[in-house]
Amino acid sequence: MAVLNVDLGSRSYPIYVGPDLISQEDLYRRHVPAEEVVVVTDETVAALYLDYLLISLGGFNITCHILPDGEEHKTLETLGTLFDTMIAAPCSRETTLIALGGGVVGDIAGFAAACYQRGIRFIQIPTTLLAQVDSAVGGKTAVNHPLGKNMIGAFYQPACVIADTKTLSTLEGRQLSAGIAEVVKYGAIRDPAFFAWLEENMEALCRCDDSAIEHAILECCRNKAELVAADETERADRALLNLGHTFGHAIESATGYGQWLHGEAVAAGMVLAAQMSCSLGWLAEGDVERIRELLLRADLPVNPPKDISVETFLSHMSRDKKVADKRIRLVLLEGIGRGRLVADYPDETLTDVLAAAVA
Amino acid sequence: MAVLNVDLGSRSYPIYVGPDLISQEDLYRRHVPAEEVVVVTDETVAALYLDYLLISLGGFNITCHILPDGEEHKTLETLGTLFDTMIAAPCSRETTLIALGGGVVGDIAGFAAACYQRGIRFIQIPTTLLAQVDSAVGGKTAVNHPLGKNMIGAFYQPACVIADTKTLSTLEGRQLSAGIAEVVKYGAIRDPAFFAWLEENMEALCRCDDSAIEHAILECCRNKAELVAADETERADRALLNLGHTFGHAIESATGYGQWLHGEAVAAGMVLAAQMSCSLGWLAEGDVERIRELLLRADLPVNPPKDISVETFLSHMSRDKKVADKRIRLVLLEGIGRGRLVADYPDETLTDVLAAAVA
Repeated sequence: MAVLNVDLGSRSYPIYVGPDLISQEDLYRRHVPAEEVVVVTDETVAALYLDYLLISLGGFNITCHILPDGEEHKTLETLGTLFDTMIAAPCSRETTLIALGGGVVGDIAGFAAACYQRGIRFIQIPTTLLAQVDSAVGGKTAVNHPLGKNMIGAFYQPACVIADTKTLSTLEGRQLSAGIAEVVKYGAIRDPAFFAWLEENMEALCRCDDSAIEHAILECCRNKAELVAADETERADRALLNLGHTFGHAIESATGYGQWLHGEAVAAGMVLAAQMSCSLGWLAEGDVERIRELLLRADLPVNPPKDISVETFLSHMSRDKKVADKRIRLVLLEGIGRGRLVADYPDETLTDVLAAAVA
Repeated sequence: MAVLNVDLGSRSYPIYVGPDLISQEDLYRRHVPAEEVVVVTDETVAALYLDYLLISLGGFNITCHILPDGEEHKTLETLGTLFDTMIAAPCSRETTLIALGGGVVGDIAGFAAACYQRGIRFIQIPTTLLAQVDSAVGGKTAVNHPLGKNMIGAFYQPACVIADTKTLSTLEGRQLSAGIAEVVKYGAIRDPAFFAWLEENMEALCRCDDSAIEHAILECCRNKAELVAADETERADRALLNLGHTFGHAIESATGYGQWLHGEAVAAGMVLAAQMSCSLGWLAEGDVERIRELLLRADLPVNPPKDISVETFLSHMSRDKKVADKRIRLVLLEGIGRGRLVADYPDETLTDVLAAAVA
C-alpha cells in the first residue's frame, strides 16, 4: 500500500493506494471516530463490493443508501432521497459518511456530507479509475442542473481516500478508457515525463497491469494534490485540471448526460483544446498528434459528435463555471506538459476549430 | 452608521448598522466587484424595499428572484427554483448574490450562494430584528427538511452585512418581539451587563426607539462576532448561541413550521432551559423569574403549547444537530450571563421539566 498526503493545513488528508484496501479494517478504525456510519453506493457497486465493506465495518452502526446508477441521477432530487435516509436513521453530526463508488457516487455523497447538518466527516472509496485519479481527490463535490453540469456543489475535503486497485478489475473497458482520459490529462497539463511514460506503457495500463495502474494512480494523485494544495478553491492553478472539460461538458450536456461518459467527452475535448492551441500557434502539429494518438490507443473518442451545431456547442460552453465577464475561459496548451488558462483568444479561432470538428 | 468587524482571518467582514443604509450606494460599490448581481428577497420585503435597493444598484446588471413568504418555504424545492433563475440568467462564478429580507431569505439565499458553482460572493441585508441580531451574522445558512429544521446547509460567510435599522419600522409587533427573544438570549448566555441594560430599556426597544435599537443590535452583533471568531463551525463556544433553540426547534417542528415564529419558540425554549437549570440547582429561582419577566415585557410566549406530549417533544429534540452519541446536548445557565453546553444531566430532570410545562 502506498500513501500520499494532500497538504491542506488543518484539512490535510491521506490517499491510500493499493490492492484489497476495502478489506483493510484498520483504515476504518483509524478514520471513523464515532459509531455511526452511513454508506452511500450505487446498484452496480453494491452488488460487487458492499458486502466486503460491511464486513470491514463490523463494529460500527451502519445505515446504507443505494443510489440508482448513472450520471442522469446526479441531481438535487437524488440528493433529497439521501437526506431522507440520513435524517430518518437518524444520522447525527458525528456520523461518518462513506462514499463507495465512482465519480457520481462520490460527487453526490460528498456534497451530502458537506451539507448534512452543515458538514459531517466523510471518506471516499473510489471504485473507478476516473474517480481514483481525479474526482475523489481534491474536495470538489456537486450535483448537476438540467442546464449545466456540477452547477450546485461545495469544496469539501474528505478525511481520507481509499483507492483499492483491485476494484478496477471489474470495470468495463469503456469505463477504464474514460479514466485513462483523465490520466492523459495530467501528463498534458503539467508533467511531460509522465506523458512520455504513458506513451511507453499505455498497453500495460489498458490491461490493468498491477504495477502500471498503481504507478499511474500515484502520479495522477501527486499532480492533483500539488495543484489542489496550491489553490484549493480553484482561483488559478487548479483550473488547469479542466483541460478538455469546457468542451467536454458541452458535449455531455448537448447529448444529454449519460450518453457520453465524462472521460470520453474530456478526451474529445482535449483534442479540441490541442487543435485550438495549434491554431493559435502555441502547440506543434506533432504534439496534437501525440495526444490524439495516445487517446486512440486507449480506445477513446477524439472527435465530438457531428450533430452538435457550433451555436449549440458555444451556448453550452458559455454556461461553464469558468466563464468570467461573459468570456469562456479555456485551458490550452503551450506544449506537452504546459497548460495555461486563457480568456484572451480570438473568438473566430474557437468558432473555426469547432466548425472544423463538427463538419 | 456604526461598523463592527467579524474577525475570521481571510473571511473577515464588516457589519454596518444604521438608518437608511439600503440607499447608501457606496456600500455596494465597495463590496460588489463584478457587474452581475442577483437579488433574492420575498414578496413582503420586495413590496417595501426592493425598489430602494434597485435604485442604489443603478449601474449593475441585476436579476431578481422573489421567494414566497414564510418558513414553510425554506426547503430544498424552493432552493431549486432559485438555482433555476440563477442558471437561466445566467449567473457566473463572479456574480454577487444579495439577500434582502428576514432570516428565511438570508438562510436560503446564503445557502444558494454557498452552493452555486461551489460558492459565489454574497451580501446580507437583513430586514427583521431577528436577522439583524442573529441569523445574518455568523455564516450559518440552511434549509429545513420535513423531519428537522436547518438540517441541510453550510457555514458560509458573507462579504458584508448591511443592517438598515429603518426597515424595523415596518415590522409587525409579533416579528419585532420574536427578534427581541434573540436579543435577550445574548444577555442570558454571556453578557450580564447587557441583560441589565435590557431590563432598563425594554420599553424603548419595543417601541423601536432609534438609539435603543442601534445599541441593542451592536451589542448583539459584538457578542455574536466574538463567539463566531472563536469557533466558526460550532464545535464548542458557538453552541451557546443555541440557548432555548433545542427546545424551540422541537416546538416549531411539532407544531408545523410557520405556526410559531422562530423567536417565539426560542423564548419559550429559554424559559424551559432556565427552569431545567434551576431544577439542577444551577440557577436561582429569582433568575428564572428575571428571564421570564423580561420576555413577557416583550410580549413573548414563556410556555410551550400544551398539546405536545413529552414523548413528541423528546423525539423532536433528538433530531437536533447538537445530538452526539445519542445524547441531546442542551445549553443551560449557571447564572444570568453564564451559559454552558451540557450532555451529562439526569434524563428525568429533562422529562420532569417538560412534563411540568405541558401539564
